Amino acid sequence: MRVRYKPWAEDYLKEHPDLVDMDGTHAGRMSDWFDTEQPIYIEIGSGMGQFITTLASKHPEINFVSMEREKSVMYKVLDKTKELNLTNLKMICNDAIELNEYFKDGEISRIYLNFSDPWPKKRHAKRRLTYHTFLALYKQILKDDGEIHFKTDNRGLFAYSLESMSQFGMYFTKMNLNLHDEDDEDNILTEYEKKFSDKGSRIYRMEAKFHKDL
Amino acid sequence: MRVRYKPWAEDYLKEHPDLVDMDGTHAGRMSDWFDTEQPIYIEIGSGMGQFITTLASKHPEINFVSMEREKSVMYKVLDKTKELNLTNLKMICNDAIELNEYFKDGEISRIYLNFSDPWPKKRHAKRRLTYHTFLALYKQILKDDGEIHFKTDNRGLFAYSLESMSQFGMYFTKMNLNLHDEDDEDNILTEYEKKFSDKGSRIYRMEAKFHKDL
Repeated sequence: MRVRYKPWAEDYLKEHPDLVDMDGTHAGRMSDWFDTEQPIYIEIGSGMGQFITTLASKHPEINFVSMEREKSVMYKVLDKTKELNLTNLKMICNDAIELNEYFKDGEISRIYLNFSDPWPKKRHAKRRLTYHTFLALYKQILKDDGEIHFKTDNRGLFAYSLESMSQFGMYFTKMNLNLHDEDDEDNILTEYEKKFSDKGSRIYRMEAKFHKDL
Repeated sequence: MRVRYKPWAEDYLKEHPDLVDMDGTHAGRMSDWFDTEQPIYIEIGSGMGQFITTLASKHPEINFVSMEREKSVMYKVLDKTKELNLTNLKMICNDAIELNEYFKDGEISRIYLNFSDPWPKKRHAKRRLTYHTFLALYKQILKDDGEIHFKTDNRGLFAYSLESMSQFGMYFTKMNLNLHDEDDEDNILTEYEKKFSDKGSRIYRMEAKFHKDL
């Protein structure tokens, strides 16, 4: 995503330590930060937050964490969280590579990856959020039957992820190679999804779990 | 594939016992049937045989087996095999479920599944050539590092196969979600592929192997 730098975003985020972790204050103790002890779902790279804030308002029985490193888009997630008075959504302003600093082993029930940066150049493959180093982090923090829900309009990233995840010992369910061709009332659109789908681009989606014996 | 019944096809095939096994004559001894001992590649459901006869003529260093239960299309494979004077291609006229009657455990290096019948109705799922009962047969007859090469224009069958194969403990390489959008000089077109691709349909392709520890 191309992001216009917003110099005021950092101060704005810092003014809300009840909702945004800017410096690892809650690292290793994320569950304690929520009012209620209930399953935790994370979205990595929340962009402007349409997806996770909608989901959080629909599912008060789940705790949500939005992880996003770009302050200049994360302020939008904060805006929406405040607007909706969400008490079950917290934000981490940091890079995904730090995931296991924040979460204990097996603490997480589900991870969402929506329209992640495709990093199309081969030499940037290790930055893709489905590169094996990231998969290893996900495996560590996910429960045994934890799920990754993956959605993208980028054909190359989807194909790459099917290879990378299966090679790492993951298996797939709910595979959909043209999401909007089939009606799915449960699908919550992200900002990108709406824009790309309106242009006629295909949206690819799947859910994935780790084989226990690999 | 809709096939017009050809009453003379059976007799024609029977006239060529050097090329076609109609009754399991070579079951359990397929390797001995070839002039040269070299790797064996199978295509299951060869249709009219454009793919496997082209491949066999390009690769004399490989032995090929075409398995097809429809006599009324298999005669075309026989026609082409005779035309090209192929000595490295044999035909089995039988159902894929009998695979392990013909081949020894670990005898096969590669299996091709091209434009298999999608059996779109859920109650027919077990007839799909990537249903787990078939995968178990493939695992049995394939070498440890044996490969399945899969190609289809049917989005539903491809999505189903990604789920079924990954759940069975397979992983993917060479994933391509729109084959003809990228130039691949090595791609050998089947009759169906040419027809569907000319109509603008997408062709999906991947290669798959079995995880050793599952």
